Amino acid sequence: MEKYAKLLGNLRDKNPLVHQITNYVTVNDCANITICIGAAPVMSHYFEDAKDMVKAADALVLNIGTLDDNQLEGMIAAGTEACKRNIPIVFDPVGAGATTYRTKTAYDLQERFPLRIIKGNAGEIGTLAGAKAGVKGVDCEAFEGDLVQTALKLANSSGATVVISGAKDIVSDGERVAAISNGVPLMSKISGTGCMATAVCAAFAASAKDDFDACVAAMTYLGIAGERAAEKSKSPGTFKQLFLDEVYNLSEESFYEYARLEEYR
Amino acid sequence: MEKYAKLLGNLRDKNPLVHQITNYVTVNDCANITICIGAAPVMSHYFEDAKDMVKAADALVLNIGTLDDNQLEGMIAAGTEACKRNIPIVFDPVGAGATTYRTKTAYDLQERFPLRIIKGNAGEIGTLAGAKAGVKGVDCEAFEGDLVQTALKLANSSGATVVISGAKDIVSDGERVAAISNGVPLMSKISGTGCMATAVCAAFAASAKDDFDACVAAMTYLGIAGERAAEKSKSPGTFKQLFLDEVYNLSEESFYEYARLEEYR
Amino acid sequence: MEKYAKLLGNLRDKNPLVHQITNYVTVNDCANITICIGAAPVMSHYFEDAKDMVKAADALVLNIGTLDDNQLEGMIAAGTEACKRNIPIVFDPVGAGATTYRTKTAYDLQERFPLRIIKGNAGEIGTLAGAKAGVKGVDCEAFEGDLVQTALKLANSSGATVVISGAKDIVSDGERVAAISNGVPLMSKISGTGCMATAVCAAFAASAKDDFDACVAAMTYLGIAGERAAEKSKSPGTFKQLFLDEVYNLSEESFYEYARLEEYR
Repeated sequence: MEKYAKLLGNLRDKNPLVHQITNYVTVNDCANITICIGAAPVMSHYFEDAKDMVKAADALVLNIGTLDDNQLEGMIAAGTEACKRNIPIVFDPVGAGATTYRTKTAYDLQERFPLRIIKGNAGEIGTLAGAKAGVKGVDCEAFEGDLVQTALKLANSSGATVVISGAKDIVSDGERVAAISNGVPLMSKISGTGCMATAVCAAFAASAKDDFDACVAAMTYLGIAGERAAEKSKSPGTFKQLFLDEVYNLSEESFYEYARLEEYR
Repeated sequence: MEKYAKLLGNLRDKNPLVHQITNYVTVNDCANITICIGAAPVMSHYFEDAKDMVKAADALVLNIGTLDDNQLEGMIAAGTEACKRNIPIVFDPVGAGATTYRTKTAYDLQERFPLRIIKGNAGEIGTLAGAKAGVKGVDCEAFEGDLVQTALKLANSSGATVVISGAKDIVSDGERVAAISNGVPLMSKISGTGCMATAVCAAFAASAKDDFDACVAAMTYLGIAGERAAEKSKSPGTFKQLFLDEVYNLSEESFYEYARLEEYR
Repeated sequence: MEKYAKLLGNLRDKNPLVHQITNYVTVNDCANITICIGAAPVMSHYFEDAKDMVKAADALVLNIGTLDDNQLEGMIAAGTEACKRNIPIVFDPVGAGATTYRTKTAYDLQERFPLRIIKGNAGEIGTLAGAKAGVKGVDCEAFEGDLVQTALKLANSSGATVVISGAKDIVSDGERVAAISNGVPLMSKISGTGCMATAVCAAFAASAKDDFDACVAAMTYLGIAGERAAEKSKSPGTFKQLFLDEVYNLSEESFYEYARLEEYR
């Protein structure tokens, strides 16, 4: 537990800059949760700006939630620069499986860049892993198969650490596997929980030596914050603000007390 | 009353997918209220993605609040596909009457597609109905004439169900007319109340047989949620979150207890 | 004090329209704070729409937080029209100093338009004033030199009233200087405080005779609202909503009671 728990202190000591090229639906929540966890967000999608901005960044998030070709150009410019500098790229294939454009782009980005982390729901990750999966809008509609095997498969084929978010979150780097049971159903009643989790994975990866450890810490801490917020509100409007509060107030002690984590291998 | 009230249960049973091409100012609120009322939101504006995404949708929202030509291209692509598949198109002509571009586009979209619902403030609907109306920014500045006659007129000329939002909301399909007195002035002190109402009309239309009934239910339920939230806060910042909470917690019982609804014809 | 305090009443009496071409990260917060302070927001970035929309506006905000060339085209179209009509332009050079694109654009806009107000953090304003300053992402990373001298320098070279936001806010029109100590550190833990301050400066400038007075009033009132909100919450999620509440509930009396303001010259 300790190796995960203490990553929060590392993150806050470093206050890493997380460059995010993301959708306009949940971008404000992503900026705020990045601050609350202890990092600094910057959003820049225009290719001329993004390729320059990323030079100062400690991680780069690519989230295709409202992708268009202008934004894609920025992702490629920033991603190329990030690769040169060994800045970790964290990818959220929002809606992969729902439309040809999203699925195709997700495959293209995966081929183009050595992604360090890929985070999505079971339908999105299943789509990239070649499993039988369905995505409707941006939600998982159908998933047949085993989450752990799917995470292992995509991790091995892509070389990335894979995170499948859901009632139980699965993290795998192709060898190690962790399952995290923290979190509450109310988290799925606010738009952007998945996008926020991606931003927080990036913040941890920007300040940790190991991407797998970073993702396990990120998803566990977020689940704990969700549980604590749900003690104060059972409704999504006020819950979202309380969730941000709890992320801001997370302590390493809370990890030891609340983490519900299984590790395999 | 019953036929309106029970549409909430229908909506929640169906959990329809509402594809929204909307402005970047209030898009997050639109996504969240869509979830709170019991539907699923997806935002996709890029023509290549939008024409594909809409195939799985149960309703399509077109909101011109921050329109540009790229987004318009997406609206046309998605709208064309929606028409082929008889997916209801719900139109919010934000700022029509304020600028030539918005007014012209609103007319163009109305001509191009058989819109099922048009929702705006008195200035915007008045502009489309050819009444003496003024829009400043995105707010109604001046409106001369009768709201009911204006709604009837645009409903008849367009074939759509028309919703005029305001202190009293008017709904008409060209024959039937309803006036809804629910709601509180504080709802006009948050950005996006109108856009959120459009999203909720679309969610009801996506799961009801009759667009008029859907809009009456949507506007009444939202007004009730606003009233209940205003019992807990008199200030816009906290009110907005409480409003979302109350939308999430709406019950059919609340409709019977609180609806203030007049029906004509 | 009185000349500043009473500008709030003027603002609320006039309810000015503030046209904002701004970033998609904090645009919703900017819209809401504009309403809370007593003005009306409208966002429109597309050149064809923006050049028309600005005609009805009482102030124009140009914020380069997520600038791209399409948005820049809109800024130039709206700015040109604003100049013709003597509508004050309020500029927020978000991230100037962090990337070449942002720095270059900030200089270009400053050269192109007679900006009435320039508001940024010490790094951004230092960059425009030619001081030794560093900007990382959108935060000030380094600043060497004297804030007052820097504000005076840029005010004199640009002809604008300059606002440097920070623990102590500095306002100068090149002759007069004010330093405002209101505010709390928690304000820097939410994304968009700076952008919101720019919107509020614009709302005051749209309804005051003197830009310097407008900016002093804006920054002081916001600091007071922040202090009052911090009495109710110590965490960023709930604090943001309470901050908007307090902005909505500001009174001239609160200015007399809480303002911590030093004036030089």
